[in-house]
Amino acid sequence: MKLAIDAMGGDFAPQNIVAGAVAALHDNSRITKLYLVGDQPRVEAELRKFGASNNRIDLVHASEVIEMDDSPVQAVRRKKDSSMCRAIDLVKSGEADAIVSAGNTGALLTAAHLKLRTLEGVDRPGLAVIIPAPKNIFVLLDAGANLEPHASNLVQYAIMGSLYSKQILGYKQPRVALLSTGTEDMKGNELTLEAHRLLKQTDVNFVGNIDGHDLFSNRADVIVTDAFVGNAVLKACESTARLVGYWLKQELKKNPLRMLGAVLAAGAFKALKRKADPDEYGGAVLLGINGICVKAHGASSPNAAKNAIRVAAEFIECQFNEHLVEETRKFHDKVQQNTFAQPPIEAAS
Amino acid sequence: MKLAIDAMGGDFAPQNIVAGAVAALHDNSRITKLYLVGDQPRVEAELRKFGASNNRIDLVHASEVIEMDDSPVQAVRRKKDSSMCRAIDLVKSGEADAIVSAGNTGALLTAAHLKLRTLEGVDRPGLAVIIPAPKNIFVLLDAGANLEPHASNLVQYAIMGSLYSKQILGYKQPRVALLSTGTEDMKGNELTLEAHRLLKQTDVNFVGNIDGHDLFSNRADVIVTDAFVGNAVLKACESTARLVGYWLKQELKKNPLRMLGAVLAAGAFKALKRKADPDEYGGAVLLGINGICVKAHGASSPNAAKNAIRVAAEFIECQFNEHLVEETRKFHDKVQQNTFAQPPIEAAS
Repeated sequence: MKLAIDAMGGDFAPQNIVAGAVAALHDNSRITKLYLVGDQPRVEAELRKFGASNNRIDLVHASEVIEMDDSPVQAVRRKKDSSMCRAIDLVKSGEADAIVSAGNTGALLTAAHLKLRTLEGVDRPGLAVIIPAPKNIFVLLDAGANLEPHASNLVQYAIMGSLYSKQILGYKQPRVALLSTGTEDMKGNELTLEAHRLLKQTDVNFVGNIDGHDLFSNRADVIVTDAFVGNAVLKACESTARLVGYWLKQELKKNPLRMLGAVLAAGAFKALKRKADPDEYGGAVLLGINGICVKAHGASSPNAAKNAIRVAAEFIECQFNEHLVEETRKFHDKVQQNTFAQPPIEAAS
Repeated sequence: MKLAIDAMGGDFAPQNIVAGAVAALHDNSRITKLYLVGDQPRVEAELRKFGASNNRIDLVHASEVIEMDDSPVQAVRRKKDSSMCRAIDLVKSGEADAIVSAGNTGALLTAAHLKLRTLEGVDRPGLAVIIPAPKNIFVLLDAGANLEPHASNLVQYAIMGSLYSKQILGYKQPRVALLSTGTEDMKGNELTLEAHRLLKQTDVNFVGNIDGHDLFSNRADVIVTDAFVGNAVLKACESTARLVGYWLKQELKKNPLRMLGAVLAAGAFKALKRKADPDEYGGAVLLGINGICVKAHGASSPNAAKNAIRVAAEFIECQFNEHLVEETRKFHDKVQQNTFAQPPIEAAS
């Protein structure tokens, strides 16, 4: 399989991305080609640090870089020779199966959607992240792709997220829940009430509504929500974890006894940090488009870049998109057979 | 001042509520009357535990209780003689200035809104919570009152939240931010884009958008959002804090060295727990209605009930609603003078 890597995307590019790419090639012999797309002299300089060139690596020069603070739509329109756009072009032309980038999220979502288009039967792509909990790992989507979804989009996210949980995380019958303001069926806003009604009629293993208190309580393996809420919740979780860590550190520094205790228990703090380390989880995946698109986080370490490439390879290997097209077709067949009632609010659109 | 207490609301009622009420009376001599509303024999039995009866306490019998899992609208309609409804009736009739309840949140919001109505100039009430951060305490609203707000409602929340921060928390010029998917002006969904445009034209100290990563970074003293997002974010923060605590405990138990460290540093863990203890913060306040309405959390301890009563007393004492009416009038005057452009999407409603 062949992957296109946006070597210039992210706060520590190209060095961390190139380092991660070299490590990924070392770990996975089934990757036959990695296109490193970016400023050729700089990428070459990074590669030189790792010794002899690798014939599984192809350098593809791109003269521009989409910066983190560029406006997504404008950047995609204007910076046609950016590393990100060129890398996506390789997927579009069929030369690569996946694109991995740690660059500007909005630009990546926009460019991947515009250039690769959605899969047959999929109306809108959804950005999926995986989140570790004590007793399971769950998929949360949409974490940022579609800010004004219809209820029917949320139903498609349920199908995509369910397939992610099955194919990549190995859950046999992933439990799909809808994020709402409470667990009762009648809780929520217009969007979730309608999505709830539709989800009950699908073949996904829909377990009903959950609320923010239930995120980590092993009630769902897939949590479906709109991008605004998904984005806010994901970031709120991250900042709360950081806050607790910060406060704990402050308290532990307050007297020598506590400091000694902290030294003795250092292993526990390190283990906790590792558990919550986003670098281990391989980034967010844009589901529902023609091609695999993985977004590593902006501050990606070499390890984060490597894991994002690993995740992209897993998606290619399990033929995720072929399965998704099939699942989506089954879903639409069910709609056609009128066993699935069309949502009234969607009729006009 | 006079307060009506729903003595039967909450998981540990009436015992914890009555205990909190007695403690509040002890702490605050300016409370001239506490109406304890509920099942008279049970409330009396609790009061007896604290010795002689207090002439500042009036028992008001109510034969019904709205349960935590009752449907809010139905409960309010049917259980007219519930402790919650009777307590609100005391505010409506002017016998009490405030209602405090640890009962069913949805029922309390519904009953308070229906019975007390909104203040002059306020379209929809908003539920405000305060959240501690390392360098400030911020007000988040709406945390659950209005699931389908217009942008103009969010503007009113900004005014209310700002006043909360000023009058109760003592901030001179509270910074008001809009929760969105990023800090840039053009980030967000239709609702926040429109709210952003309107907020820039108000007199509140609007500092722009923030996202979930900025909650605790001292960028805002008031964070405005819609109830769905506010509810999800608040609960996500709470469950993440619990998750980190759980994981840390698990790791600390893994070997004797870590356990020893944990014992030595126990003071730090306790301090951390206290910092995040919702019992200290006195519950959520429903802003914008004729009367003060404080919602203590369902599992309220006596201390939580006491603090909820303290908060209600603070709102009465600073004449919060009088100030809010004035601020709202100023805002509407500005609208009238056409310095504030009416939102086009609201024109039809």
